[in-house]
Amino acid sequence: MQTLRTRQPFAGSTTRARAPTVRASRATAVSVQATIKLYTNPGSRGKIAEWYLAELAIPHELVLLDMRRGEHKRPEFLAINPFGKVPAMTDGDLPIFESGAILLHLANKYGKLSADELGTAAQWTLFANSTLSDAFFNSAQRGTQMPVMLSSLNSILSSKPYLAGDKFTVGDIAVGSYLLYLPLFFPDLDLTKYEHVWGYMQRLAARPTCPAPYKEAMAEALEAASQRAGGGGVMSKLFGKR
Amino acid sequence: MQTLRTRQPFAGSTTRARAPTVRASRATAVSVQATIKLYTNPGSRGKIAEWYLAELAIPHELVLLDMRRGEHKRPEFLAINPFGKVPAMTDGDLPIFESGAILLHLANKYGKLSADELGTAAQWTLFANSTLSDAFFNSAQRGTQMPVMLSSLNSILSSKPYLAGDKFTVGDIAVGSYLLYLPLFFPDLDLTKYEHVWGYMQRLAARPTCPAPYKEAMAEALEAASQRAGGGGVMSKLFGKR
Repeated sequence: MQTLRTRQPFAGSTTRARAPTVRASRATAVSVQATIKLYTNPGSRGKIAEWYLAELAIPHELVLLDMRRGEHKRPEFLAINPFGKVPAMTDGDLPIFESGAILLHLANKYGKLSADELGTAAQWTLFANSTLSDAFFNSAQRGTQMPVMLSSLNSILSSKPYLAGDKFTVGDIAVGSYLLYLPLFFPDLDLTKYEHVWGYMQRLAARPTCPAPYKEAMAEALEAASQRAGGGGVMSKLFGKR
Repeated sequence: MQTLRTRQPFAGSTTRARAPTVRASRATAVSVQATIKLYTNPGSRGKIAEWYLAELAIPHELVLLDMRRGEHKRPEFLAINPFGKVPAMTDGDLPIFESGAILLHLANKYGKLSADELGTAAQWTLFANSTLSDAFFNSAQRGTQMPVMLSSLNSILSSKPYLAGDKFTVGDIAVGSYLLYLPLFFPDLDLTKYEHVWGYMQRLAARPTCPAPYKEAMAEALEAASQRAGGGGVMSKLFGKR
């Protein structure tokens, strides 16, 4: 994937234009900047949007905001997201914030989804960003709701490889991203007991477009599961250390 | 609005078909059942979906689930929402759960929105159901995030009557519903200090399609504000009691 530094809209921010293939010309990448810009930073849910942009092979420009320098609170960015949070996107003149809304806008405008498919995409995106997020990251909910959510997802995924059936869809990016956050936030959680969720997470992390932090989280989860099972860990096995 | 009892899909549940005008014939209401069914109960966020169905004047059938009888956990309903929560909807053969997803599906399929308008609708719906909901109803967030959200919304609404500009849109239903929940959950919160939010809430509650519980919440909020201002309350003024 070609990466070009193109301009610095806010002092200190880093801007990269990404074209979908290494064969893309500089001219392509430069013309692309005017269309989709994703404002993000490395630790944000912008990775969810990056995953879908990669799946759709949509040329786009990444604008990395330096939060320590307060770039997310400058008027230029508040005009895009008045709440001063990333990720946010501009598609031409249209500003959109909220990671789930970015997914749905891309699905609707570039994903060639039918009306019914968009309804299902909306369902899984709202579910991920409200119900599932609350069950995982609201400590008052976690004890009761996390097991309920994981059991229900396990049941759903027992009969099909992806949420909507045989085909990987944007709903899998929405829900899968939250699942792949789990090993990062809760390294002691044993996800192997939800075997269909566990297999699903591995399928998602194996996709070439899956962002590196999620792939790394899954690698750590596999290592932890192997150690938990008394096998000394995947890495130990690979390198013969016990 | 004509209301017909048509059938009882689950023992004990109440089903009503609603046609958009009182002139609708029984035949219309009955043919309508096959299209959109909203599964809900009186205390749920189904009211948000009911509001938009009324705005769009879409004929639909309400199926009230009796949670005490466990109707939300029966296989017939779990086939629609495997997580067993209301609201959920069927539009023909398509099942959709999550109140925000129901709004977006209706907006996309029946709301005649452009792609950009749908992107903005997705933004406000995701914002309402994740960021705003978390700021209001997650006690660990409320102290810091509720004032930030209300101040930002106040600033946004200082220059326009509705979130998207001059026109009332589905985004106002998504965000407005959460604002109109505030007087119910936090009767001591003085919203009048966010004057543009306060005016906005009154504009929303005044719409003929606004569900009764939100209208009542606003009436209570006005009464509380009047009492807080030392005026003895709107009701007291109306009836001359001080």
